[in-house]
Amino acid sequence: MTAWLEQQAAVRERRGLVRTPVTRIGEDSAVDLASNDYLGLATDPRLAEAAREAIGRWGTGATSSRLVAGTTALHLELESELAGLTGMESALVFSSGYLANLGVITALGGPGTLIVADEHCHASLIDGFRLSRSRVETVPHNDLGATEHHLRTRAEPRALVVVESIYSVFGDAAPLPQLLALAEEHDATLIVDEAHSLGVAGHAAFEGHGSVAGTDLSGHPNVVLTATLSKSLGSQGGAVLGSFLLREHLLNRARSFIFDTGLAPASAAAALAAAGIIRAEPWRAAAVHRNAASLTAGLAPALHAPTLQRRGPAVGPAGASLETAGAVQSIPMSSAAAALAASQAAHVAGVRVGCFRPPSVPDGVSRLRLTARATLTPDDIDYACATLRRILEETP
Amino acid sequence: MTAWLEQQAAVRERRGLVRTPVTRIGEDSAVDLASNDYLGLATDPRLAEAAREAIGRWGTGATSSRLVAGTTALHLELESELAGLTGMESALVFSSGYLANLGVITALGGPGTLIVADEHCHASLIDGFRLSRSRVETVPHNDLGATEHHLRTRAEPRALVVVESIYSVFGDAAPLPQLLALAEEHDATLIVDEAHSLGVAGHAAFEGHGSVAGTDLSGHPNVVLTATLSKSLGSQGGAVLGSFLLREHLLNRARSFIFDTGLAPASAAAALAAAGIIRAEPWRAAAVHRNAASLTAGLAPALHAPTLQRRGPAVGPAGASLETAGAVQSIPMSSAAAALAASQAAHVAGVRVGCFRPPSVPDGVSRLRLTARATLTPDDIDYACATLRRILEETP
Ligand SMILES: Cc1ncc(COP(=O)(O)O)c(C=O)c1O
Ligand SMILES: Cc1ncc(COP(=O)(O)O)c(C=O)c1O
Repeated sequence: MTAWLEQQAAVRERRGLVRTPVTRIGEDSAVDLASNDYLGLATDPRLAEAAREAIGRWGTGATSSRLVAGTTALHLELESELAGLTGMESALVFSSGYLANLGVITALGGPGTLIVADEHCHASLIDGFRLSRSRVETVPHNDLGATEHHLRTRAEPRALVVVESIYSVFGDAAPLPQLLALAEEHDATLIVDEAHSLGVAGHAAFEGHGSVAGTDLSGHPNVVLTATLSKSLGSQGGAVLGSFLLREHLLNRARSFIFDTGLAPASAAAALAAAGIIRAEPWRAAAVHRNAASLTAGLAPALHAPTLQRRGPAVGPAGASLETAGAVQSIPMSSAAAALAASQAAHVAGVRVGCFRPPSVPDGVSRLRLTARATLTPDDIDYACATLRRILEETP
Repeated sequence: MTAWLEQQAAVRERRGLVRTPVTRIGEDSAVDLASNDYLGLATDPRLAEAAREAIGRWGTGATSSRLVAGTTALHLELESELAGLTGMESALVFSSGYLANLGVITALGGPGTLIVADEHCHASLIDGFRLSRSRVETVPHNDLGATEHHLRTRAEPRALVVVESIYSVFGDAAPLPQLLALAEEHDATLIVDEAHSLGVAGHAAFEGHGSVAGTDLSGHPNVVLTATLSKSLGSQGGAVLGSFLLREHLLNRARSFIFDTGLAPASAAAALAAAGIIRAEPWRAAAVHRNAASLTAGLAPALHAPTLQRRGPAVGPAGASLETAGAVQSIPMSSAAAALAASQAAHVAGVRVGCFRPPSVPDGVSRLRLTARATLTPDDIDYACATLRRILEETP
């Protein structure tokens, strides 16, 4: 194996794709445009207190599968809170968002089920497709016509349409009302991954409750949601939301639920506290949108520089995302090396941004990924924009 | 979907396979023979304190992928401690044992790699096989001849042999020295899942360090370990242990690492504290073995009752496990209904045991699964044995 590993490492080196995670060492004064702690709740003292209390009451681990001895009253309380927040009938909590996606896709898929998947779907969804042994049709990003075509011409009795309400890398939104209409018309189930939307997006009185709450999709029998507790909710874990019958089905059939240790009590408690804060403090979601707009405005000069324009069509969605959906903003770069150099230069200047290179980009275009987090101050944003403008203008 | 879900629920009902997790509601005086908290560390105040401190320092979540902003000094410290504990060169920590297994199998597998897997491998390993697109040969449990045959006759340049050092359901051990010899002879990598062994098994001065530490396998270039932080370590999370080069490879190629939020700091800190306790308090592993022997002795009369003997060959491994490897003890039952009834009767009498029914049993035989945890008192064990003897004698 050693020779093979060495050879693989050499290939990565040659392509400029070696990953070297930066380690956080305690106090850090950098402006954080990299993490998915959208609402700033991962360091909120109320989450910390809830987690500490849960450790005292339930211990540091769930001690076994949720089906054996790993379900505490806390897990059930969290599930009912998440269902309430999103307007769904019930929820089942997994130990990660990744495993929640694997669980729901494999438990609903299989021979006899067609999966129609957006090409920008997250790795955890794609792994679910592969594991499910369903026929999978991948459609161009947000392409309703292609989705309709596959649903209409399918031979399978069942079908799943799988999308993200806000896409993780580009930050743009899925056309949910139209997708629901297709699901209804063709007797399909629409699975919506709310990972980057929960806490951030929301309709009218449901600010921060995600893209589905308060819409026709909420509680609809053709709709299933997945969520992660590790982004806006400042914790760890994942959930699938849908009918009681779906929950019962997952509990009996989702391998990544049955054969996995339950979520740690501290993480469950932190997510539960976060859900309450999302309800009580809609200003956080509003701040994300305000900060997204400020970042867009502040970066606009650099984004329209000729060096960036020739980076092709990916500028489109990235530009669009800045004004619409959530917190995620995406800046296409000319190469993996340019993306890495820019993110490192930003880091040195005290601004942390995400650097996404293949295979972490759905279109193969390397990019910087910025998150317009709620707790950024106007000064943070001014400084970050000035820094990034300078770096982008200097980057080939 | 609703009609299909209802129909699936009806099938489960008919087969007696409906799962209804018992919820823990605060203080619980039952004797715990169900959880995988083998050493009693999930409620140890030192783990609690370490987790609380980590929350104050690092927050309640890792906030993003380990590659973006999710790696803290704590994660690296945990990795170096786990490597030290098991005698491996390095470690990479995942958010669960399930995802660690998916990650290593998919990153090392693929076309060009043959996977030779024991038929009792855990669901997370099997899902890894499926995702990896490798050719997979499943061999009869602990069958060295079949393993050798597939390695010798393979066309693929690379091969993985995948086993658990102590099997999760039967509790018996894999023949590791012989497997290593086969791996060396046939240029294969031996992947050993130490989930139920770490903290419990151990050679000579390495009591509790797992089945590999202190043996020829430890640090061997043909050996890779996986571990979970959710059993003996009383927390949540998982790890893959091997060479630096392997760690580097996983960090670049394991999708379940790259596309998943890092382990919550509280869980990392609890596992780190647990690893230290495993080193400092070898009496815990010893207590597991003493308690396992007491449970065996106490249950023997019921296990040899005619009603249990006619339950077929599965009695063999179950009986064997009681005397050997680790903490897990397995009692085959005549049917899924009998297993469920017995576990419920035990629960009512204040003894929690695991009830494993298809598909959670590798041989299709429903069983009770008992864990001889370190912190059981002699009274706990006497009471549990008397209770279980009575129930087993009354159960068809
Ligand atoms: C769209 C999407 N779904 C699911 C996940 C997985 O969630 P988690 O990190 O909580 O496992 C992520 C990110 O990690 C994501 O971006
Ligand atoms: C053998 C084995 N490997 C891996 C796992 C997965 O570990 P985790 O529960 O930490 O995800 C388990 C149990 O859950 C197991 O029994």
